[in-house]
Amino acid sequence: MTVHVDFEPIGRRGNCPAGGTLLDCARQLGVDLVNLCGGVGSCGRCKVQVLEGPVSELTPKEQELLTPQEVAEGYRLACRTVPLGACKVRVPPESLTAPQRTQVEGEDIPVTPEPLVETYLVTLEPPTLDDLCADAERLREALAQQHGVVAPGVDLTALRQMPGFLRDEDWRVRVAVREGEIVALLAADARPLGLAVDLGTTKVAAYLVDLETGQTLAAQGFMNPQIAYGEDLIARMSIAQQGPAQAALLQELVIKGLNQAAAEMCAQVSAAPGDIVEAVIVGNTAMHHLLVRLPVQQLSHAPYVPAIASAMDIKARDLGLDIAAGGYAHLLPNIAGYVGADHVSMLLAVDIAQAEGVVLALDIGTNTEICLANHGQMTSLSCASGPAFEGAHIKHGMRAANGAIERLRLEGDQIEYQTIGGAPAVGLCGSGILDTLAQLYLAGVVDASGRMSDEHPRVRCLNATREFVLISEEEQGDNRPAITFTQKDVRELQLAKGAMRTGIQVLLEAHGLVEEDIDQVIIAGAFGTYIDVASAIVIGMLPSLPLERFRQVGNAAGMGAKMALISRRKRAEAQDLARRVGYIELASVPGFSRKFSQAMRLGQ
Amino acid sequence: MTVHVDFEPIGRRGNCPAGGTLLDCARQLGVDLVNLCGGVGSCGRCKVQVLEGPVSELTPKEQELLTPQEVAEGYRLACRTVPLGACKVRVPPESLTAPQRTQVEGEDIPVTPEPLVETYLVTLEPPTLDDLCADAERLREALAQQHGVVAPGVDLTALRQMPGFLRDEDWRVRVAVREGEIVALLAADARPLGLAVDLGTTKVAAYLVDLETGQTLAAQGFMNPQIAYGEDLIARMSIAQQGPAQAALLQELVIKGLNQAAAEMCAQVSAAPGDIVEAVIVGNTAMHHLLVRLPVQQLSHAPYVPAIASAMDIKARDLGLDIAAGGYAHLLPNIAGYVGADHVSMLLAVDIAQAEGVVLALDIGTNTEICLANHGQMTSLSCASGPAFEGAHIKHGMRAANGAIERLRLEGDQIEYQTIGGAPAVGLCGSGILDTLAQLYLAGVVDASGRMSDEHPRVRCLNATREFVLISEEEQGDNRPAITFTQKDVRELQLAKGAMRTGIQVLLEAHGLVEEDIDQVIIAGAFGTYIDVASAIVIGMLPSLPLERFRQVGNAAGMGAKMALISRRKRAEAQDLARRVGYIELASVPGFSRKFSQAMRLGQ
Repeated sequence: MTVHVDFEPIGRRGNCPAGGTLLDCARQLGVDLVNLCGGVGSCGRCKVQVLEGPVSELTPKEQELLTPQEVAEGYRLACRTVPLGACKVRVPPESLTAPQRTQVEGEDIPVTPEPLVETYLVTLEPPTLDDLCADAERLREALAQQHGVVAPGVDLTALRQMPGFLRDEDWRVRVAVREGEIVALLAADARPLGLAVDLGTTKVAAYLVDLETGQTLAAQGFMNPQIAYGEDLIARMSIAQQGPAQAALLQELVIKGLNQAAAEMCAQVSAAPGDIVEAVIVGNTAMHHLLVRLPVQQLSHAPYVPAIASAMDIKARDLGLDIAAGGYAHLLPNIAGYVGADHVSMLLAVDIAQAEGVVLALDIGTNTEICLANHGQMTSLSCASGPAFEGAHIKHGMRAANGAIERLRLEGDQIEYQTIGGAPAVGLCGSGILDTLAQLYLAGVVDASGRMSDEHPRVRCLNATREFVLISEEEQGDNRPAITFTQKDVRELQLAKGAMRTGIQVLLEAHGLVEEDIDQVIIAGAFGTYIDVASAIVIGMLPSLPLERFRQVGNAAGMGAKMALISRRKRAEAQDLARRVGYIELASVPGFSRKFSQAMRLGQ
Repeated sequence: MTVHVDFEPIGRRGNCPAGGTLLDCARQLGVDLVNLCGGVGSCGRCKVQVLEGPVSELTPKEQELLTPQEVAEGYRLACRTVPLGACKVRVPPESLTAPQRTQVEGEDIPVTPEPLVETYLVTLEPPTLDDLCADAERLREALAQQHGVVAPGVDLTALRQMPGFLRDEDWRVRVAVREGEIVALLAADARPLGLAVDLGTTKVAAYLVDLETGQTLAAQGFMNPQIAYGEDLIARMSIAQQGPAQAALLQELVIKGLNQAAAEMCAQVSAAPGDIVEAVIVGNTAMHHLLVRLPVQQLSHAPYVPAIASAMDIKARDLGLDIAAGGYAHLLPNIAGYVGADHVSMLLAVDIAQAEGVVLALDIGTNTEICLANHGQMTSLSCASGPAFEGAHIKHGMRAANGAIERLRLEGDQIEYQTIGGAPAVGLCGSGILDTLAQLYLAGVVDASGRMSDEHPRVRCLNATREFVLISEEEQGDNRPAITFTQKDVRELQLAKGAMRTGIQVLLEAHGLVEEDIDQVIIAGAFGTYIDVASAIVIGMLPSLPLERFRQVGNAAGMGAKMALISRRKRAEAQDLARRVGYIELASVPGFSRKFSQAMRLGQ
């Protein structure tokens, strides 16, 4: 006997043996749920929400590990719940292991498509000696007569292709028009595509979107190839300032990556990059400037002024981006030197301007941008949280990749952990680093000042530095090195934690609010999606608020880019957001240093 | 004792010995008047118009050689007129020898400047930690506050230069704005310049213009470097169709020439090409397409359709033209495959849309474009007049250069002639070719059918072809070859003459008019400027109308380009003209062949 189980929104469904738990079903259907305890009901990480269908009764373990609100909303632990008939289960992003979590980004864009570029199928009469109208005028007239569309402009490259294409296609083509300009001619049966890009300092996420339906057809993530020339923005900007050739090199690296991703995604859906009639790219201000090859001298020195803040429409070919002949790349607006278009895009995706009450939205990264919206009045700032959560400057830190410890618990002397892909542990990624510090603080191994005690059996001293042995050489076996967490790692995290908490504090004070006033905390970005919010509260990185006030939204910047791609209304909203959001330069806030050193204390 | 003489519009003036003729004065002041007869009052070519001051009385020779209307208007023969006090004399273009005649093109443009690109001097406050506005927005705000100018757009290249330039210039710059787009930043004391180009198949004329005053600051003519790849349009278009590399080569040749001319003209007036904020380029449809690198396949095969007819605004950098960062090249509209922007430009310059009565306007060249305006209702066509008047396919033909016979008379057995630059004769340029045929026809050496008689002592037979010896080997001396005019040359000219006259006839018939209805004939273009209209009437190339109905206007296409450069109104008029002018495809006119063979007869 079997039961049918449907896991959403990742869309895995099938018949599973009756009597098994939802965790068993998930494993059978290839849905990788987080389970630190191995399914014995002790870690509480395999939370799912039962939407439909009969399941077994709530167990005491679940009553202990779930909040009353979660229980009310139908949340269960998958390892404790047995489906009693066909049922539909929602898997929240935080319950999925890392490699799968990127898949949830494939969901539809929650915006009605009203793209800036629209296409029209036209059929022309070929010219004769009695009808000598030029090609461009002939096409314009057909657009006007057959669709009532007025297009006085025509892109130069599109025009160069026009005479040959019209004749090759026997005078029947699909015309892409953008605000009165003919930007491309497509085959009659082509479907117009869009490319949305979240251009991060470390990672790039690219999405191929059907402009008419708004569906995401393909997605691809890759490391920003500029990394080879510097991990952080400061390093890259200083390279760009060495000369035009270096600036060109950095730009071409990114474009090459984007062109490759676009080509691969198009191939997946049997389309061609020439069918992409518009792109939207978001990134922080420095990535934006490097992409457009704008000077960064003034951006990398006080007072850190961008060359431009407004949204830009640039012919994609002027950037080297291989899309349709006259297609544009639209860049969302920047707010300031360290609060860029990616932040605007995130705010757009979470619709913060319409949010009720007090909302705090964070995109955690090397620079963490934070926005506080107080009943629609918005202020943003950026704090230099450093690359610790991306694994840099941490002794055994690493990026989120196979073998990275992403979840960790300390039970007495014992360590429980889970690695990405279930591979043998090779290091700690951001969420694992955060868990580790929280566990050490809870166990009293690290005190509020950040000092590591030497009283725990796992603490040892190496080269005059204390370190906590998470996995010893012996536990690793096979001659693999130990994985440890050092006093210096604690200090790095204190700087990151202190920066973020100071930022939050400054924003609250600017609005005359206190932490308890915050109704909702939105955490965006890859790292923010995967962290254990409870751990972040334990160390004091995030304010101590009820867990249900937190919302982990994934790559909101990418989602915002997709929204702006398919919706001219959303694009206008982004420009409006950038104008309305107030900006605070953290370094110029009175008493910043005092606030910062206070905020570095753990647990508060 | 001396008298002060002022020659206009070429602006040569000075004191000359009293008692000398105006021709003597002209020689002394370096004004090269045409005088075939050596100043003996027999050729009637040194016509000038006395505007002011006392001169000697009209002589019988002048009464014989001038029309009553000319006499009434103050025309005199310079060799027969003695200034009796300070006087001011106008020299019509046809009385100047060729090298000087190009100078008259330096005159002011008879249009009030209202350029599309305007510049504004702005002074900015530099950014501080309390004023973090981005550079582009800071500049926009200053434009709005200091000049009430709204400029939402900014050119990409201009933006790339902006941060460095603002700081180098200490935040005080001149901003060039074109229809709401910041196209360039200039130094505070720079004067905004424009470049006007008449891009001919054979010759290119470039003008540097002060956009604010409308003054022509410099002019330069050069051979179209594409000539090395084919003398006519058909040859060049077939090269462009060999592949993208060949098309690119042709385009780059022209652009290189233009960049060099622009740089040289700028150097002459202590400016830089970066001060040129706008260019206007006119040419025939094929030159237009080759310049923009549009396909010419459909243009060079029936039904000869352009890729585009409307005016175009192209970023100059997309053409490779080195002007200000974001400056545009504006291309006037085309009418049809063989009636291009240069024709529109000529019509614009002569203001044909406003002309009263019936006006015929011709731009004579390898293709002759003709427009008939009947009280403002305009129709144009193009006829393949061939390159004979440019000296090609004529045994001793040559371009208008030193040593070319430009004027010729036959007196019995004697030949009187004048060469360009007074150099020893080496061949015949267009006007000399025309004079020769007219003289041979008048002398009965060539009959109406074009047959050359062998009864004249200067006619000889060489290789079974009759030819008329203009200057024999003996007359040349120094072992220099004879210059002759052959039966075949006559046939070439009959084709050219026939084509033009057929064109005129077809236009008249289309409007239900006859030749006598024509109130004015405007002859534009280099060749048209230098020809002897009487000779053209003698052979029947132009209708037999009173000479005062003819107006030779020089490079009207270049003048039209200059007008469109400095005046947005003129630019709109050009677009309107192109739309309003009707077009007749000569080859599809019923009875064309019959008309053409009739029109080939000389003298009618």
